[in-house]
Amino acid sequence: MKRVLSGMRPTGKLHLGNYFGALKAWIKLQDKAESFFFIADWHAITSAYQDLSSLSENTVEMMADWLAAGLDPEKATLFVQSWVKEHAELYLLLGMTVPVKWLERNPTYKELMENLKDRELATYGFLGYPVLQAADILIYKADVVPVGIDQIPHLELTREIARRFNNFFGNLFPEPKPYLSEAPKLPGLDGRKMSKSYDNCIYLSDSEEEVNKKVKTMFTDPSRIKKTDPGHPETCPVFAYHTIFTDEETLKEIETDCKAGKIGCVQCKRKLAENLNNFLEPIREKRNTYLSRKKEMVEIFVEGSKKAEKVAQETMENVRNAMNFFKPEDM
Amino acid sequence: MKRVLSGMRPTGKLHLGNYFGALKAWIKLQDKAESFFFIADWHAITSAYQDLSSLSENTVEMMADWLAAGLDPEKATLFVQSWVKEHAELYLLLGMTVPVKWLERNPTYKELMENLKDRELATYGFLGYPVLQAADILIYKADVVPVGIDQIPHLELTREIARRFNNFFGNLFPEPKPYLSEAPKLPGLDGRKMSKSYDNCIYLSDSEEEVNKKVKTMFTDPSRIKKTDPGHPETCPVFAYHTIFTDEETLKEIETDCKAGKIGCVQCKRKLAENLNNFLEPIREKRNTYLSRKKEMVEIFVEGSKKAEKVAQETMENVRNAMNFFKPEDM
Ligand code: SF4
Ligand code: SF4
Repeated sequence: MKRVLSGMRPTGKLHLGNYFGALKAWIKLQDKAESFFFIADWHAITSAYQDLSSLSENTVEMMADWLAAGLDPEKATLFVQSWVKEHAELYLLLGMTVPVKWLERNPTYKELMENLKDRELATYGFLGYPVLQAADILIYKADVVPVGIDQIPHLELTREIARRFNNFFGNLFPEPKPYLSEAPKLPGLDGRKMSKSYDNCIYLSDSEEEVNKKVKTMFTDPSRIKKTDPGHPETCPVFAYHTIFTDEETLKEIETDCKAGKIGCVQCKRKLAENLNNFLEPIREKRNTYLSRKKEMVEIFVEGSKKAEKVAQETMENVRNAMNFFKPEDM
Repeated sequence: MKRVLSGMRPTGKLHLGNYFGALKAWIKLQDKAESFFFIADWHAITSAYQDLSSLSENTVEMMADWLAAGLDPEKATLFVQSWVKEHAELYLLLGMTVPVKWLERNPTYKELMENLKDRELATYGFLGYPVLQAADILIYKADVVPVGIDQIPHLELTREIARRFNNFFGNLFPEPKPYLSEAPKLPGLDGRKMSKSYDNCIYLSDSEEEVNKKVKTMFTDPSRIKKTDPGHPETCPVFAYHTIFTDEETLKEIETDCKAGKIGCVQCKRKLAENLNNFLEPIREKRNTYLSRKKEMVEIFVEGSKKAEKVAQETMENVRNAMNFFKPEDM
């Protein structure tokens, strides 16, 4: 593993699902490979161009979330996509060789076209989402891209785009491989997938009080009415959290006690809230520190973007040469 | 007329058809309005990405053709599209709001999709040609775009794209108006439209000998076999040239003599060749001077690109603000 790249759309504050689904893997990767992580603000507008009122704020919140969670600018290059203009140039150039057919096959696009109410989103930019994604990855010649399992087809398209470009212009881009991290399943408060649109999230930025309140509302095993009813921890969202946030010994205890009807859900949740807050407290604190020194925080991303730009510029020089553009430097 | 913009794809040396169809109008416009003219090298690859071996050379040849023909860097901003990266950024951002439907309606694209052998050209970049064109124009907030009559629908699309963008993000872009110049009809050597693909062109760079030779091969009124046969100058390509390159008096003479069977085609052509060479000689000379001082010539376009970039950067700042991107300067 030489070079790793991944990005996240700044659509709002990060929740625990984001943390365990992606961020945690990135934090591990930054120790193992040359890592590039970017805030994908251009991508954010593909599906939200009609209302960008929170784009700016979301970008800043993401910076704080990332740094607080443990992404380290000493280890990884952290940057903002729209600050490295070369992505747009490569997007334009790659697009010249990508058959429209390849993009129309994209299931997300197809779905959109079939859904009348989303028709307004069937824009040229939306159709070209995978082209911009390919540009993001290829411009850093990334070997490895940490992705969720649903992203595998998109990455396959990046590989195809790279192959086609190499075919025409010489061996410029390595084909990136997916990196699947084993993310623990962390359900939302209601047991469904944690998602902002379901309003069932615990955010990295939630205060102690918010966490306490939210945990109280969590779904539990519905077959338990009284404390003495035997429970089924394996189907209980609260227990799923305990497997992550509670030590082995206590976990065992809870499991046994729940099954035996010896622990009440209220008590069980109180424990969870405590452990969750222990986990979140240092993140919260770092987060607030970063936000109170916003200028310094932004500077980290300015520096990261400069580092990323240097790499991107090098790649673009090769690309422009391979495509036989005339450049002043040619003189 | 405040600001004028137009571009040309560097597909090879310019011929007289290009000169009278576009360049001559530009040369007039540079005296009347703030003018931006660019070599559209990014556009050149949309229909030729499979073979870009002459792209670099064509770009340099176009510089020489433009300057030799009379475009003046003191009056107009002359630049190279791919040297002003902001075009790519605006292309990306505009694309986010342009419905794919609008682009699929484009007759050129439709034709391509129906023609099996051209299918490989039905790329994402080709589909988005009008989006890049809109970016080229709107980034300079051009009021007026000199176009051929076949380009009017494309410009209308630019106006629609501007309108839609303004609608979402505020009144950023004026809607550019087309400027139709009265171009004299100048046929190719064989009487068809002058076009490189027909191999019937006279180039601005043709030598005296080449011009003499080409004029000899020109089609004339087919009903004239002997000198004494009465001719029909109104259908003769050679005569069409005389109307442009020959003085009024001589023109009248030729017309009368041809109709009366008093002048032979050989003699008539000799006169044309002489006049054509008189017209081309100063262009040829300037052209060679520029090419012999290539570095200085390229410098003109470097300077022009910097001037263009300044304007483009200003527009992009407004666009980024209107779309609510977070930028380091916001701190
Ligand atoms: S005791 Fe805990 S694990 Fe058992 S059902 Fe209640 S909340 Fe879930
Ligand atoms: S004399 Fe001149 S104008 Fe008449 S047919 Fe011949 S070439 Fe044409």
